[in-house]
Amino acid sequence: MTFKHITSRDNSLFKQLKKLADNARERRKNNETLLDGVHLLQAYMEQFGLPKLLVIAEGESTNEVVGLLQELADVPTIMFTTLMFAELSPVATPTGILALVDIPQLPVPEQADFALMLEDIQDPGNLGSMLRSAAAAGVDAVYLSQGCTDAWSPKALRGGQGAQFVVPIVERADLAAISQAFAGQTLATTLDGESLYGLDLSQPTAFVIGNEGAGLSPALVAAASHNVSIPMAGQVESLNAAAATAVCLFERSRQKMAQG
Amino acid sequence: MTFKHITSRDNSLFKQLKKLADNARERRKNNETLLDGVHLLQAYMEQFGLPKLLVIAEGESTNEVVGLLQELADVPTIMFTTLMFAELSPVATPTGILALVDIPQLPVPEQADFALMLEDIQDPGNLGSMLRSAAAAGVDAVYLSQGCTDAWSPKALRGGQGAQFVVPIVERADLAAISQAFAGQTLATTLDGESLYGLDLSQPTAFVIGNEGAGLSPALVAAASHNVSIPMAGQVESLNAAAATAVCLFERSRQKMAQG
Repeated sequence: MTFKHITSRDNSLFKQLKKLADNARERRKNNETLLDGVHLLQAYMEQFGLPKLLVIAEGESTNEVVGLLQELADVPTIMFTTLMFAELSPVATPTGILALVDIPQLPVPEQADFALMLEDIQDPGNLGSMLRSAAAAGVDAVYLSQGCTDAWSPKALRGGQGAQFVVPIVERADLAAISQAFAGQTLATTLDGESLYGLDLSQPTAFVIGNEGAGLSPALVAAASHNVSIPMAGQVESLNAAAATAVCLFERSRQKMAQG
Repeated sequence: MTFKHITSRDNSLFKQLKKLADNARERRKNNETLLDGVHLLQAYMEQFGLPKLLVIAEGESTNEVVGLLQELADVPTIMFTTLMFAELSPVATPTGILALVDIPQLPVPEQADFALMLEDIQDPGNLGSMLRSAAAAGVDAVYLSQGCTDAWSPKALRGGQGAQFVVPIVERADLAAISQAFAGQTLATTLDGESLYGLDLSQPTAFVIGNEGAGLSPALVAAASHNVSIPMAGQVESLNAAAATAVCLFERSRQKMAQG
């Protein structure tokens, strides 16, 4: 296999991809993002087919990458220097393959039975973990406030491990309006709410989770039908926001399964 | 207040603190680490008293930092340039205060009722989140394999939000031996185990959690009394390791509370 080999950082395609890697506005404007690594690309292709472009690093490729390149021989492929490639990758040890894809928009159900609303989550790893938990727990739709970090950044995609391709995500959502329109209970997670375990979660349920440091805004607490807390037995009184999200979502899963 | 003001990166104290910030071996050798920010320092002081040294950045200090400096007027305090301070801090937006402390060793109960064993966790943020969940769920002891990232690194401390000061942590532990000696059930989390929800978790219980990518080693799976999985309703089949840990630990909490 031979590929177009680009070694100059002045190359216009490199500059464009670097903007996509670094800049949420650029990703939104073009409706494109970069997927890093074989696993994410395969998860994407299972749902949406071929990527628009593949990028590899010069030097050695793993057999996994070589196999994928053979399988995707019809997709335009370019090669960057190792250093240029590393500038596009969100991880310290780059995986050796990046793919340019359109950001997919999965259809959002009109009446979600199980929703997750996230207010102003700052850390892309946390957001990725929350989306991954949502996808695993069977959430129907995730709504992100204007102030949330971008769900399609390379770091959030890495944290999501493919969750972004299976769970519908609505960005820049008006969470108060969505909370009030939700046809079911909306549960705002706070430090002084009702016990999560005392609520019947088998009915249509939306969890509303706040910023890592500040928690939920008063407006969203007020818009919710209940405030809920995870009872804590230990000496530390709060959880990482992504850990708390997982506990809430899977408590609903558990209750639904217990009902049969 | 006036402080010793250090502006040279050649300063021996700066060089020593930089080693502590960057290097697990150095932290272990000296049994010292750096705490970043008012919150962590306060959590430390609640348990262990004063730090050995305070470090602040030149320029403006927040009122929170100024208040703490007044309260801790007897603790030696030095001031570094903003850039030097930033080199010691694990966060992009430094908090403006660092504290040098001895790494505490909390007594480990001889017979833990609720334990967590972590094998080769790589990401310090994940490890911090797991320790925070353990502290919140009332875990008695956390055992870390030789291959785990350092629990006392600035990033792991930041993720733990004070958990390291309340839950006993045993590093470089032989998890297979501890698992076999544990006086209760040891539950290895895998993708094909029994349902977490079908087990009686009210008895003495240890959860064994594996590396983020590779999962648990066969040796630890074999050493456990059960393999357990979190049933997943969605299209994604695994959780972030820290999210899975939270779900497991809080399912035990829930069962214990349900028993009264």
